[in-house]
This record gives sequence, structure tokens and C-alpha cells, in this order.
Amino acid sequence: MKKHNFSAGPSILPQSVLLKASEAIVDYNNTGLSLIEISHRSKEFVDIMENARSLALELLGLEGKGYKALFLQGGASMQFLMVAMNLLEKRAGYLDTGAWSAKAIKEARKLDDIYEVASSAEANYNYIPKGFDIPSDYDYFHCTSNNTIFGTQMKTFPKTNIPMVCDMSSDIFSRTLDFSQFDLLYAGAQKNMGPAGTTLVVVKEDILGKVSRDIPSIMDYKSHIKAGSMFNTPPVFPVYTSMLTLEWLKGLGGIAGIEKENDKKATLMYSEIDLNPLFKGFAAKEDRSKMNATFNLVNENLKETFETMLKEAGISAVNGHRSVGGYRASMYNALPLDSVKVLVEVMSELETKA
Amino acid sequence: MKKHNFSAGPSILPQSVLLKASEAIVDYNNTGLSLIEISHRSKEFVDIMENARSLALELLGLEGKGYKALFLQGGASMQFLMVAMNLLEKRAGYLDTGAWSAKAIKEARKLDDIYEVASSAEANYNYIPKGFDIPSDYDYFHCTSNNTIFGTQMKTFPKTNIPMVCDMSSDIFSRTLDFSQFDLLYAGAQKNMGPAGTTLVVVKEDILGKVSRDIPSIMDYKSHIKAGSMFNTPPVFPVYTSMLTLEWLKGLGGIAGIEKENDKKATLMYSEIDLNPLFKGFAAKEDRSKMNATFNLVNENLKETFETMLKEAGISAVNGHRSVGGYRASMYNALPLDSVKVLVEVMSELETKA
Repeated sequence: MKKHNFSAGPSILPQSVLLKASEAIVDYNNTGLSLIEISHRSKEFVDIMENARSLALELLGLEGKGYKALFLQGGASMQFLMVAMNLLEKRAGYLDTGAWSAKAIKEARKLDDIYEVASSAEANYNYIPKGFDIPSDYDYFHCTSNNTIFGTQMKTFPKTNIPMVCDMSSDIFSRTLDFSQFDLLYAGAQKNMGPAGTTLVVVKEDILGKVSRDIPSIMDYKSHIKAGSMFNTPPVFPVYTSMLTLEWLKGLGGIAGIEKENDKKATLMYSEIDLNPLFKGFAAKEDRSKMNATFNLVNENLKETFETMLKEAGISAVNGHRSVGGYRASMYNALPLDSVKVLVEVMSELETKA
Repeated sequence: MKKHNFSAGPSILPQSVLLKASEAIVDYNNTGLSLIEISHRSKEFVDIMENARSLALELLGLEGKGYKALFLQGGASMQFLMVAMNLLEKRAGYLDTGAWSAKAIKEARKLDDIYEVASSAEANYNYIPKGFDIPSDYDYFHCTSNNTIFGTQMKTFPKTNIPMVCDMSSDIFSRTLDFSQFDLLYAGAQKNMGPAGTTLVVVKEDILGKVSRDIPSIMDYKSHIKAGSMFNTPPVFPVYTSMLTLEWLKGLGGIAGIEKENDKKATLMYSEIDLNPLFKGFAAKEDRSKMNATFNLVNENLKETFETMLKEAGISAVNGHRSVGGYRASMYNALPLDSVKVLVEVMSELETKA
């Protein structure tokens, strides 16, 4: 039976990417060797790394604008620390929109002073705070564009004269934005880009080198830039698979192309949530994420019936995070519209049964 | 044509491991989903992680002795920093046996005082210093068991009453040792364990929690232990493939089993280097590595002929590192004895031609 994979991350990847990645493990490009047993300094892998880096900048519209793309290790959690190590001199402003923002704040606070410009923690993060001030003498402003757990997404970003840093782990490459409004953005690969194990960092070079601390080499963006994202052995397979996904995305017309598909999926999903009296959405309507729709059953007695129906339809990984409960449908780039149709049909069928 | 892959790392993996890893990318264990598109919190992946962690301890003979195994990200280069962050209060002693030791020293020095107990830098690291003192009031002693670039390997380890930390990136799981003499050992996966992208850390819990610094969460071994090596999304594919390699190793009789094969390979290789007048070994005989044999042509005029013959025999990646020159045959666990035989035949054939 076909599975409909709504996993919040690691999450669904294009079938064509999985097939190519699988082949490369046995024989990379007819070299007679596996991709994972050749040197990262070989021409084969250097080409992969360079291609991945330039595709990332090209798809974001950031080529020739002073940015560098890096494929690092350690996930967004490592970036929480690296951002502060590289940019925090005295004080920075953070927008607290969910569990991941809160972790970024906690980690940066160990290095210096962090000011929360606004927070929606008191409402279990079901909305995005707006209308806050960002002091112009801070080192940088940090925000999280999409909150996987709560199903909220920033639709606009504040104007500020200080560097803007954004954790885009769960919605990068999913919607058109003026990415040049950000000075540094980062994203764990395992939602819209590839398998777990690499993190894309895109940084405007001229914001670096301004803090007084002696940054450890492995934590210094400048060491990684200087080494062409090969300061040490990179995570070969995650980078290769990310490159394949970025090529796939380019073939679909880039971000603008996939955005149309993502809009269709989100519209279908939220229409059902709003029209079906058995369900209610968790996030504030104006802040709803197009990547992760969070919703609950109005009547918990239907839980077992609903979950049996989901299983029978081949729908996997729609359980909500424990801090929200209910359901979460993650609709990342590689999820077909068809999978959302199947989920919506099950929800609608439940209504006729109830 | 069959390739004989002598790559220094990322390096050869068992063919059976490559085939299983490749299958898992398309369909993991008949789940209908790829290994890389399921949640790391799924039972499937939690089982993989736990299996990998316990296999590592079992193979090292460290079960039930107060050690924990972790699969982290960032390579040995990240461990250079993490070791110091977690253990360095005032001063530590480092043995400088090569480029990687030197990097470990450089990184730790950014945090506090580091004392080189001995160094072979003046001889381009062609031997392992011996007979040095390790002051008993230092926080820990750090060494590198095998030096990939120079082809040297520590045959014995000093007795000391302070914690002993060892970078075993290039010879872990290759030879029997009393691993309980180490309090912390670490190894990038990409030599004897798996693909690039994960690092095994084995740490005796009771040495942790003794420094006064406020360690960033992602750098704190205790956060990783507490979270069962899932403090954040782990590098799923590298961990799975490492687990497969550890299972393969267990099937061969564990470290004692593979050591016999490694001894045969090294004996054959070094016999040829010593008996063939066209070649000379780089490393001091008593410190020769069983993993990486480094050697040079006595007469550089034979270079082109030799390299053409290597290529014709399907021998790949035997070029020496630029800081040593000549040749390096890396004979990691998964390299068949047959590949060494082919290399030795080419060397011997060159002698008849010359």
C-alpha cells in the first residue's frame, strides 16, 4: 500500500532523489566505487559540494550579493551556539515564537545578554507576536520563520537596521521571499532539503569578524568559508542528497514553482479544518503555517475511529507534538497534493460517520 | 574492473553493508518508507541508535564498566573542542604526534593552558615520542592512537593516574587493546566504522561534571548522554550504516577476528616495502601503523611508470598526503587482503621492470 508520509522531520523526500541516492551508495556515477567510500577531496565530491552550495544561493536569489552557502554539521541546535559565538558582542534581540526559538535564546544567553523582543509563550505559542521594537544598537535580531510544533509561520519580517538572523529549518525553499533581507539564515536539512546530518548556513560575509571573542576554529563561519565548506570531512551523503533535492526543485521551477503546489496543499488542508465541524485548528488563522497544519478533534471520543481510518488509508506520522496534542499534517515540498487529498477525504468521511 | 580502494578516509566499507544501506534508502525493512524520511523518534530509528550504541560498547569490551557511547556530529575536529570544554579546568597534557594532534592542541589552547608532553614535529612526525612525563595534577592527558598522514601508531599507552583521552579516528575497532585504560575515546566514523557524518564518543561518566565553566548544551556530553544520543536530530544515515558495519564486525569475531586479517595485510605490505629496493618506508619501524603504510620511491624517475601500473591494476587512492609525499596504502578493516596482494604484486613487478 502507498504510504502518505506526513512526518514532521526527518520527512518525505522526492522519490527520484531517493532512487539516485540509493544507487550512489552502491556505485557513484559508474566510478566502480560507492559515494561514501571516496575521499571528500576527490574531484567527484568537490563538484558535489560546489554544486550544492551554488544551487542553494541560486534558488534563494542570493548569487552575487555577498553571501556564502555552507553545509555544516550539528543541526539548528549547533547554529543556536554558532550564531551567538560569531555575532554576539554585547546584546541581541530574539523573537520567541516556539520551542526552537526558546532553545536558541537559552543557548545564546550562556554567552551574553539576550533580550526577548516579544514572546507568545503565554498562549502556548499559537500566534506570532507583532508590532514589537528592535533596538537599533543591538548586535543582531533573531527569529524563527516557521514553528513546526505549533503550526505557525511568520508572513512578514520586521524592518531593522541591524543584521537579521533567521532559523528557516522548517520552511526554507518553500515560499518566495526577498531573502536578501536576512544577513544569516540557517536550516537543518531534514525537512525541505535532505536527510538529517547537514545544516545549510547562508551568511552575508560582511557581518562576520566583528566580535572580540577568540572563536574556536570549528565554530567560526570564516574558517568554513575559507575552506570552501570543507574545514573538516563534511557529511558526504547528506550533502549529496541535499544537492539532488535542490536539483529536483530547480527542475520544478525553483521556489516559485513549488510555492504554487504548497499553496494548493495548504488551502485544501485548512479548508477542511475550517469546514469540518469535528475539527478545530490550533494556530491563529493569520499565522497559519503552510508547512505544518496543527489541529485537534473537537470530540476526543472519535480519536480511535479517526486513527484507525488514518492507518487504513496509509497515512503515517500525523500525530501532534506532545506539547500541542491532536494532529499535525506536515506538508513539506516533497509531499504530493494527492496525499493531502487522501487525508482530507478521511477527515470528511469521519464527518459522515459521526 | 574491480577497484582496490586504499582511500585514507572516507574509505572502503564492506560490500554487504553498502548493499543493505542502499536498500534502506528506498525501503527500510519493508516499512514502505525510506530510512531517511522517517522520524528519528520512531521505534525503527530508536532501535537502530540503541543497537549501534550497545554494539560499540560490546565490541570494545566496555559494557557494564561505567561508559556511555554517543554518536555525535562534527567529526574529530568538533571533539577537539568538546573534550576541552568538558574536561579542561586549568591545564592538560597533549602528546603531539601529527597534524591532527596539533589541531587538537590548537583548539584546546583557546580555552585554557595546554602543555605538550612531547612532540615529534621536528622529524616531520615520522615516529612516536616515548618516555615522557605526565604531571599528575593535570586535568587529563590527550593522545592520537594512529596518525593517518604519517603512518605511525602508538603500540602502548602511558600509565597515568589522570584521565586519558584518545583520538582513535583512524584505528578504532582494528586491534585488541584494553580499552578501559581510556576514560574518553572518540573517532570520526569515516575510516573503520561508516560514512562521514557521525563521530563515536565513548566516555566514562564519572569524569564528567568537574569543570566550572557553563558548557553550552550542544557541547555538553551530559546533555547527549541524558538524551540517549538524541539531544537533537541525529545523522540518521551515518548512524545506521555504522551500526551495519559494527554488526558485520561482530559477525567476523569482533576486534580479535579482524585483527588477524589486519596483521596479515600489514605484514605483507611492510615486507614488500622492506624487501623491495625501489621503495623505502617513511615511518620509524617500531611505530609503523597497521592501518596506513607510508612509503616513497627511492628513484623518483619511476613515478610515472609505477602510477600507470597502479591505475591499470585498479588500485585507487594510494597517493601520499602532501606533507609526506610518496604513497600511502590505507588498509582499514574492510579492505580485503586480496587488494594488498594486488598492490604488492605491482610493486614487485616494478622491480623486475626497473
